[in-house]
Amino acid sequence: MVTKTIANWTSSLAYSSLPPSTTRSAIQSFYNWTGCTVGGNAHPATTIARNALAPFFGAPTSMLLGSHQHQKTDAQHAALLNGIASHVHDYDDTHLETIIHPTGPVAAALLGITETLQRPVSGEEFITALVTGIEVECKCGLAVWPSHYDFGWHITSTTGSIGAAVAVSKLLDLSPDQSAHAIGIAATQVIGLREMFGSHTKSFHPGRAAQNGLMAAILASNGYTSSLEALEAKRGWVNVVSDDNKLEDLVASLGKEGAWEIEKNSFKPFPCGIVIHPVIDGCIQLHGVIDDCGKRNEDITDVQLTVHPLVLELTGKTKPRDGLEAKFSVYHGAAIGLLLGQATPGQYEDAVVTDAEVISLRDKIHATADEKCRPDECHIAVNFASASGTSAPIEKHVDHAVGSVHCPMSVSQLTEKFMIQCVPVLGLERTQKVSEWCWALDRHEDIRGIKEFF
Amino acid sequence: MVTKTIANWTSSLAYSSLPPSTTRSAIQSFYNWTGCTVGGNAHPATTIARNALAPFFGAPTSMLLGSHQHQKTDAQHAALLNGIASHVHDYDDTHLETIIHPTGPVAAALLGITETLQRPVSGEEFITALVTGIEVECKCGLAVWPSHYDFGWHITSTTGSIGAAVAVSKLLDLSPDQSAHAIGIAATQVIGLREMFGSHTKSFHPGRAAQNGLMAAILASNGYTSSLEALEAKRGWVNVVSDDNKLEDLVASLGKEGAWEIEKNSFKPFPCGIVIHPVIDGCIQLHGVIDDCGKRNEDITDVQLTVHPLVLELTGKTKPRDGLEAKFSVYHGAAIGLLLGQATPGQYEDAVVTDAEVISLRDKIHATADEKCRPDECHIAVNFASASGTSAPIEKHVDHAVGSVHCPMSVSQLTEKFMIQCVPVLGLERTQKVSEWCWALDRHEDIRGIKEFF
Repeated sequence: MVTKTIANWTSSLAYSSLPPSTTRSAIQSFYNWTGCTVGGNAHPATTIARNALAPFFGAPTSMLLGSHQHQKTDAQHAALLNGIASHVHDYDDTHLETIIHPTGPVAAALLGITETLQRPVSGEEFITALVTGIEVECKCGLAVWPSHYDFGWHITSTTGSIGAAVAVSKLLDLSPDQSAHAIGIAATQVIGLREMFGSHTKSFHPGRAAQNGLMAAILASNGYTSSLEALEAKRGWVNVVSDDNKLEDLVASLGKEGAWEIEKNSFKPFPCGIVIHPVIDGCIQLHGVIDDCGKRNEDITDVQLTVHPLVLELTGKTKPRDGLEAKFSVYHGAAIGLLLGQATPGQYEDAVVTDAEVISLRDKIHATADEKCRPDECHIAVNFASASGTSAPIEKHVDHAVGSVHCPMSVSQLTEKFMIQCVPVLGLERTQKVSEWCWALDRHEDIRGIKEFF
Repeated sequence: MVTKTIANWTSSLAYSSLPPSTTRSAIQSFYNWTGCTVGGNAHPATTIARNALAPFFGAPTSMLLGSHQHQKTDAQHAALLNGIASHVHDYDDTHLETIIHPTGPVAAALLGITETLQRPVSGEEFITALVTGIEVECKCGLAVWPSHYDFGWHITSTTGSIGAAVAVSKLLDLSPDQSAHAIGIAATQVIGLREMFGSHTKSFHPGRAAQNGLMAAILASNGYTSSLEALEAKRGWVNVVSDDNKLEDLVASLGKEGAWEIEKNSFKPFPCGIVIHPVIDGCIQLHGVIDDCGKRNEDITDVQLTVHPLVLELTGKTKPRDGLEAKFSVYHGAAIGLLLGQATPGQYEDAVVTDAEVISLRDKIHATADEKCRPDECHIAVNFASASGTSAPIEKHVDHAVGSVHCPMSVSQLTEKFMIQCVPVLGLERTQKVSEWCWALDRHEDIRGIKEFF
């Protein structure tokens, strides 16, 4: 009954039953997603796909956010390409308990189909659909965690198809049975192996998940059948893709007070794997300190990082060759923090990764795993050469990295991140207008109005 | 090195190195696929998808075989919809060692993209690409068999994406590295849970596999990257989707004498799961015998089937409610064989499944599993009421069902099957022309000429 229970819950959820904290999280999630999508639009993982698939585009109903000449395409390709763009800088959001980046697949599908509708779609309606999709996506992720990820599945996209199907089903007002069939058609399309990390295909995953979920809901809305027990059956999604099965209890908590998954969503201050964030946070702070102390970067002899063991397992690349590989290098993250005092997509461009000064500092950085160190904690010690040959190191202890649950990004930090991504693409004036429009998402009578900015 | 070895082999394979027996199997496979695709075009699983997705269709370059008014769409949707149609009657081909239905995903992708090319594509070239795709598809299937299927994966579509990517890569003459990336982009899209059997989504699987593989090759041909160890890596396709890993040896046998998988392809005489075929074959033979003996169907008191255990596990539905469910009922298969003397898609229409006379006979049929019975063997005993109350049963033992490796369908049986599927759609004259054209596949200078028939 789990799949049907989900379908019943999603069909009946009303905007009025969402707590203000949930609505706020939804707006922040959409805001952050919009900035990331605009910012990722010119990355090769997006542009190659856009050019390669252009011969297959259907009628241009739906925007490619931030694209040159305001390009539009059909809703399916818009879902794919906006989904790719939103993830490509590893700058999107994170549901920390599952490390799902939840908004990408769901919002890309939802915005794509919204633009095709011949009726107004209010901000409240859009938010309700977005929340519905993200709740189901994250509950599915929790249900199969951790074995699913350990097996080698990219959990953002494997659960993202299901979340996207649920969100679009909600927007199209599907019946509970149709919604259940949509979940089944999405669940049978299991997209994303972790083996693809470090290649273009990593960001293809959430894009394709958006497209899979959108197609699932479209088919189900026309009467396509799948299984009404797609998730929980003996050979259903949960049992095929994991050794865990905690879905029943999780589904029972849908919509309960304190159990809204979207409220646990966090936003990345830096465009790379979240495990590196404490180091980058600390190094950016040290960048100012070093200057204040009258020290010089050229005199650094070595840097000692103490980190959670996962940092070295996931991001231990000592000699990244390009921007994509640098996202998996705690050494590059530390180097740009210390040297440049920031970590935005600009510091992950290939030219920075291969810059002689960055490489020189990077090679002086050493990391030690410490079981006692929490994932959002780290310690950094920077040693300098001095005339006398000895000098006290400058140190920094990060208790909770910016962007973590204990230290969430503020509205002004989120806005600054949005500006960094959008101003180079849209210009200052238009970026400010989009930013205001997005922060007011819940108050729009017709969110199709977003098109005037793109 | 497995993925790269496959990519090297596929890039270098030449038509001249294919044995005549391989070419013959390829032509038969394409012939059978064409008939099944035309025959499945009007099934709801195809028509619902076609109507639902029509708003997203791109420029009409590629045929939907057998569609009303010779409809065309873009290559991606043609791959999806022709792939669905070819599988929907469970009438397609079977690679018996893996129960993969190999031609659907590969041919649907290949034909869709062929029609978009601005150059002639010879029959030899098309056959080489088809063979390349099917070989890799089936080797991948063998590599993960049987745990992959036991886990709950629909092996036709999970391997079909990879086969389709390989075939299209071959047709587009991708470099070995590009071909390896295409395999990776296909492998990361794992489509098909067995839980969907009995619903529209079962045939969606090979269609979506065709589309996944096509998109993978298109992206790779434009420089999209994935992993060069997508299949064999620790968290690559083989290890994530199975407990088996026999790929290395299998890949070493690619193209070796006696190791062509396409030569092991078989064709279904009846539109349902292959395990029921011995029973249907025997019952159709008994249909004539009963008449010859002067017996009447009305006097049948009971029918005793002795079958391989898988028959009851997979097709044990005693009271199927419609045509789709009837495909999973050995009882329906036996009833139509005895009563109507044939088993074509016509005898799997809902009206036949719910016919009172069919149900009455079906309810008298009993099946017993026997470990000693081979999968292509069965025994049937039909008992009759008589005036005296006793009467010797009429019996039939099937050693090797028609369509099995030991008793393959002849060219004239394949042609008859083709006619059954195509004449109602294309008319007699056009069907004969398409049939002749398909049998001559290897001799065409430009197979894009197929469009004149559709």
